[in-house]
Amino acid sequence: MNFVDVILKKKAGEALSPEEIRAFARGAADGSVPDYQLSALLMAICFQGMNAQETACLTMEMMHSGGVVDLSAIDGVCVDKHSTGGVGDTTTLVLVPLAAACGAKVAKLSGRGLGHTGGTLDKLESIPGCSVEKTQEEFVEQVQRIGCAVIGQTQDLCPADKALYALRDVTGTVGCVPLIASSIVSKKLASGAGAIILDVKTGSGALMHTLEESIELARAMVDIGTQAGKPILALVTGMDQPLGTHVGNALEVKEAIDILSGRAGGDLLAVSLELGSRMLVASGIAKDVADGKARMRGALESGAGLERLREMIEAQGGDGRVCEDVDYLPHAAYRIDVPAPRGGYVAKMDTTEIGYCAQDLGAGRKKKTDVIDPAVGLVMRVRLGDAVAAGQPLATLYLNKRELANEAIARMQRAITVSPERPALPPLIYAAVSPEETIRYV
Amino acid sequence: MNFVDVILKKKAGEALSPEEIRAFARGAADGSVPDYQLSALLMAICFQGMNAQETACLTMEMMHSGGVVDLSAIDGVCVDKHSTGGVGDTTTLVLVPLAAACGAKVAKLSGRGLGHTGGTLDKLESIPGCSVEKTQEEFVEQVQRIGCAVIGQTQDLCPADKALYALRDVTGTVGCVPLIASSIVSKKLASGAGAIILDVKTGSGALMHTLEESIELARAMVDIGTQAGKPILALVTGMDQPLGTHVGNALEVKEAIDILSGRAGGDLLAVSLELGSRMLVASGIAKDVADGKARMRGALESGAGLERLREMIEAQGGDGRVCEDVDYLPHAAYRIDVPAPRGGYVAKMDTTEIGYCAQDLGAGRKKKTDVIDPAVGLVMRVRLGDAVAAGQPLATLYLNKRELANEAIARMQRAITVSPERPALPPLIYAAVSPEETIRYV
Repeated sequence: MNFVDVILKKKAGEALSPEEIRAFARGAADGSVPDYQLSALLMAICFQGMNAQETACLTMEMMHSGGVVDLSAIDGVCVDKHSTGGVGDTTTLVLVPLAAACGAKVAKLSGRGLGHTGGTLDKLESIPGCSVEKTQEEFVEQVQRIGCAVIGQTQDLCPADKALYALRDVTGTVGCVPLIASSIVSKKLASGAGAIILDVKTGSGALMHTLEESIELARAMVDIGTQAGKPILALVTGMDQPLGTHVGNALEVKEAIDILSGRAGGDLLAVSLELGSRMLVASGIAKDVADGKARMRGALESGAGLERLREMIEAQGGDGRVCEDVDYLPHAAYRIDVPAPRGGYVAKMDTTEIGYCAQDLGAGRKKKTDVIDPAVGLVMRVRLGDAVAAGQPLATLYLNKRELANEAIARMQRAITVSPERPALPPLIYAAVSPEETIRYV
Repeated sequence: MNFVDVILKKKAGEALSPEEIRAFARGAADGSVPDYQLSALLMAICFQGMNAQETACLTMEMMHSGGVVDLSAIDGVCVDKHSTGGVGDTTTLVLVPLAAACGAKVAKLSGRGLGHTGGTLDKLESIPGCSVEKTQEEFVEQVQRIGCAVIGQTQDLCPADKALYALRDVTGTVGCVPLIASSIVSKKLASGAGAIILDVKTGSGALMHTLEESIELARAMVDIGTQAGKPILALVTGMDQPLGTHVGNALEVKEAIDILSGRAGGDLLAVSLELGSRMLVASGIAKDVADGKARMRGALESGAGLERLREMIEAQGGDGRVCEDVDYLPHAAYRIDVPAPRGGYVAKMDTTEIGYCAQDLGAGRKKKTDVIDPAVGLVMRVRLGDAVAAGQPLATLYLNKRELANEAIARMQRAITVSPERPALPPLIYAAVSPEETIRYV
């Protein structure tokens, strides 16, 4: 096969054959197709798209380009949740222990922070002693025993996706639904998930800025998973402001513990219950979403969820006392408020900017080799629609390098728009996409 | 500058700034932008195009990425002619000596065969002893003395174009008007041309298959040249069949000599006179095209053109006796006719296939390192619209490897459509594109 012909075919808007897609995925994994041809094809795909068959085929080829995690030793359906990434998006640390407390099995391979978004592995590592490295055997044993584990990849999963993902990042070909969908689902399938709940973010802090694109991405992923024979569904949820109030690694762990202790709630809890209840349905534990929510609430109110988080932290070598006393988490040296430059209503947030602001304080990496400061970040003091007086804090920065404060304050003030008119509030759940239907709530 | 932002900008359909285009061209020339980013941008340009300013800017950046030939020592305007490439397209060997005999100065840097198209350098080298290598000084001296020289590049011209051209070839990004236009014109400008006449081929043997694309390419090139301050114009000419009857290196030299000797004519002569007359106008020698044609015809009929070809061949070390006796050219061992599989009219030719057929016989290179056989090729025995009886020869193959005959015969029979209906004949000159206007003749 001459790979130029494959590129020309896609450039002309034709669908690629399974053989051509295999050559693409294998070529990416083993280097037999040079990067400059891969990137030309990626760009052509950005313009011409891929149909459902092509996207599913690419997903399976990427999945099979490396190892696949074997979770068969775990009793019951292992259910996984994946978010397309947001700011203050700590749903994993809230819903995984709650779902496990309800009887679900969650064997989760998670990721690190990327760009403006946080990563669950970095958050867990902010807990003293907590490790995200386990052998395959330890991982399975932990899930079998306590119902949940959240660790990093145990083996070389989806090398084709890894190569294409790295290339997309430097060739302007990230934002393309079939490429995003196949990348996400191939990794979930390779990580052994028996059922998948997807959280597709939409809005100013999301990969997809428009609702239509977000629904399109959700639909593409649900269709791929269905074709692969997995129970799968997606919620499209709001990312027009940080989901939780806390942004930063130990700060987000604190918020998760506050929620599981009943001291906090809000949108982060609401989205966690929506997603978690569907995980219980997919696991065959709850009969419907309402039943799932009731069970999740039960585990929250009884403290079983918090207890399960402590067990998971301890199983992963961490200091479980953080669950009773968040003061065991690392602290930043300085807290500095970001004052509202004028009075009015909080009308808009550039959530991506808020994420980058936390990254700048040390909560994220600008390049792979950067070391994260677990203690730093920021806490939002307002939400969209709130009335604020001039000078009232919009957020509080948590930092260890005082010299970063002025720049961060200015950046936060630019990211948060205060205006005289009371804005319409954005919804939290925009749509639910199942194999059978797309339900729009707005 | 982050080059990903440049890619994203073009992907979104925006025009690139001169600084961004400079980064592109320089990055290609010096390797500072990796191939996978260059190819992603090339593909985005294929989809989003470039406006006239961008295309002109890219041309100038590519031109200035290497050396520029200095022809100032030659008296008068050096006029150049460039064809986008065809089959049996020997206009250079016909019109350069005729124009020089009329007083024009033609300092031509020519190319080698590419894909299905022939190259003037390969044709010249089929003449015993004839060299296409000259120092810059020898080149200028020859043009000053006899009015013409046709050689290969004397120095490293347009390294940015060279890098992008090689990359386009392997990434499916060849067919894109602004990329083709800037590539051609940058090389013409770098080779020192004072005035440029372009021959844009259209039809089944051309880079551009449709007339509209061909006119668009001609317009883009004329606009770039005009912006660079050069007199420039383009003819769009037919390539729905081989232009001359002979395809192959020594065979095409023979046809040029036959024409300059008055023994042959046809479309190759007609197009040569159209282009050559415009070269005389651009040189300030002829007052208009009609005057130019009369002068060209005069040089043909007097034998001055043939004499000038002999001088050029001899100045380049070749055996000038070929001009009196074409038997001094290399001969192929076998001549085998391609019979018409049925009677009827010659209705259509896949001219690209005919070019590849000659390449297969050894007249062209499949890869850079292939050695050309100067003697082989084919001679067309019919033209579009001709009536043929079954078994009558459509063409004659000239070959040195008899075992190639059967495959070539079958291929030629597929490439030439004989049908019962008399077809409409395609025009020879479709359009003339000048800085001021586009004149369509059909």
